[in-house]
Amino acid sequence: MSIGIVSAERAHFSQPLILRSGAVLPAFDLVYETYGTLNAAKSNAILVCHALSGHHHVAGRYAGQADSLGWWDNIVGPGRPLDTGRFFVVGVNNLGGCHGSTGPASINPQTGKPWGADFPVVTVEDWVVAQARLADYLGIDAWAAVVGGSLGGMQALQWSLSFPERVRHSLVIAAAPKLSAENIAFNEIARQAILTDPEFHGGHYYEHGVRPLRGLRLARMLGHITYLSDDQMAEKFGRRQRVGAGSYSFDVEFEIESYLRYQGDKFAGIFDANTYLRMTRALDYFDPALEYDGNLAAALAPARAGFLIIAFATDWRFSPARSREMVHALVHNGQAVAYAESNCAHGHDSFLMDDAYYHAVVTAYLRRIKL
Amino acid sequence: MSIGIVSAERAHFSQPLILRSGAVLPAFDLVYETYGTLNAAKSNAILVCHALSGHHHVAGRYAGQADSLGWWDNIVGPGRPLDTGRFFVVGVNNLGGCHGSTGPASINPQTGKPWGADFPVVTVEDWVVAQARLADYLGIDAWAAVVGGSLGGMQALQWSLSFPERVRHSLVIAAAPKLSAENIAFNEIARQAILTDPEFHGGHYYEHGVRPLRGLRLARMLGHITYLSDDQMAEKFGRRQRVGAGSYSFDVEFEIESYLRYQGDKFAGIFDANTYLRMTRALDYFDPALEYDGNLAAALAPARAGFLIIAFATDWRFSPARSREMVHALVHNGQAVAYAESNCAHGHDSFLMDDAYYHAVVTAYLRRIKL
Repeated sequence: MSIGIVSAERAHFSQPLILRSGAVLPAFDLVYETYGTLNAAKSNAILVCHALSGHHHVAGRYAGQADSLGWWDNIVGPGRPLDTGRFFVVGVNNLGGCHGSTGPASINPQTGKPWGADFPVVTVEDWVVAQARLADYLGIDAWAAVVGGSLGGMQALQWSLSFPERVRHSLVIAAAPKLSAENIAFNEIARQAILTDPEFHGGHYYEHGVRPLRGLRLARMLGHITYLSDDQMAEKFGRRQRVGAGSYSFDVEFEIESYLRYQGDKFAGIFDANTYLRMTRALDYFDPALEYDGNLAAALAPARAGFLIIAFATDWRFSPARSREMVHALVHNGQAVAYAESNCAHGHDSFLMDDAYYHAVVTAYLRRIKL
Repeated sequence: MSIGIVSAERAHFSQPLILRSGAVLPAFDLVYETYGTLNAAKSNAILVCHALSGHHHVAGRYAGQADSLGWWDNIVGPGRPLDTGRFFVVGVNNLGGCHGSTGPASINPQTGKPWGADFPVVTVEDWVVAQARLADYLGIDAWAAVVGGSLGGMQALQWSLSFPERVRHSLVIAAAPKLSAENIAFNEIARQAILTDPEFHGGHYYEHGVRPLRGLRLARMLGHITYLSDDQMAEKFGRRQRVGAGSYSFDVEFEIESYLRYQGDKFAGIFDANTYLRMTRALDYFDPALEYDGNLAAALAPARAGFLIIAFATDWRFSPARSREMVHALVHNGQAVAYAESNCAHGHDSFLMDDAYYHAVVTAYLRRIKL
């Protein structure tokens, strides 16, 4: 069942944070939510890391807001795979986000105006360091597990490398150890759509009272192509035409067009373009093997966590082959790793879906964790 | 060898053309080029149909323009697969194009201003009808072959259906009998990039002295993702970083970004956005089986041509499976069809490449044609 009514918290961190780029954030806030109860030993905490467009509101609803169900409510709650009857689950909005944590729309204390373009480019490593501050704040020395899908899975992996002693298990779902050239290409086009939108104003659009909605809309439409599988798109939309089609125009003729426009419009209405730029760049830069001459096994060797790697057969953004790269590196090192591949039909988005096999694997894995 | 110096011709057609949409073009021009010599029996003519960004300049160079080699020069010329020592080869710029044939930038005789948005949406069927007028003009009753790759292959197929008695052979390369939902999705995002560019002005940008360069640039960048295979992109660019990378910015960090920006800029400088919209829409609408309840075999039954269908294993825009749909339908009907699949590594763009196996197949097929 769903965890029910929840509310967000805010933590302020007044110590400067030195980012991977060398930039320094003098102070920052993280908004977060928690579900379940931290046990006396503080050994039952699970961190959920979000993907490109996610945030801290993972599960439950806000009071009086019927349509506010968390983005991963189907996996977090009493009796659910991340069982809040047993675990204390934490969701957090990442640095640079647009859901309450310090980000490009926040006020830059040095200017008194929104950071905008001056908000630094953040990396997966930076997020993990910031999340570690939150762990300190919550009194959590070591996570029972860090869990994430897609870009969230990269954070779960990075946690095991940045803080090997603070992660007992790492659940890396629908992820990859680095982006391919094609993955970067998609991100680049999304960014160019935003950067060349005349209302982007070099990233300082807040001051102009406008937003680069056209660019953000295109970026999201493009993202959706990579979230769905070709087969699923064919099944869901095929070449079905809209009522009144046959106009021989550039209006909506096919249902897939209507779907993409709707998704693009909806997203552009609620998301921040500067955050989108930074989330995609964090994806591009993620490459733990880079400092090891591309040797992933060497890069993963410092990890002390047990790993559960999950991939989806229909995911062409991060195909199972990309997950197996991590599995092979861990096996090579003799590290503890379990791997599962689901046939869920929903492409990359499968990690968000209510797939029985996938959920059973997560449930079984987490049940075996001793607290 | 290359055919050498060539020049374009222009044919004017003063009879109105009723388009599939019901719109009527009162008159139109087609620019074309010919290579080789039409024999006395007029039995050796081959029509080359172009794809999305192609045109009539298929082979050879223009006098004094060293960098003006035709887009398919490697397949058309003396001793080449479309051997101009034997065949009379015709290239034509399609209606709605931006290389000299009547299109959105042409003057609308009713207003004295460029057609712009008022230029009708044209279809593959319309192009074939217009090309048939050119065949009449050149005195060609029946083509020895109609040949095309990608959208050009769709025209080669449509010729065999619209004018069964006028096509002896149809060479359908790197094509599909209709777009998938994912194919349409890519087209739709490209169109949305153009349509929402503030300098599009509803398609009447010529009058404003501007061009929707940003949108067209994005459209082309997106196209390039689908022209290359994931593997080839990995091999060609991988995650190689540019000299001076590590800026933690949205400037070019990875070579794939530089490549896409270059391709986008170059294309936006020479192509017309209104044409791009129409070419992609022609792709979307192409679906000969639509009037046959999706039964492709029934749709292809009227053809009298012999078919050569060629696909490329690395092409994920129109995969070999899409070519085999046509092969199976033709085999089902007992029609003459040969099929070849090349391992050329260049993805969808393979049809433009100098692939020995692919060229040998075309050479062998055309050599067997009796004139």
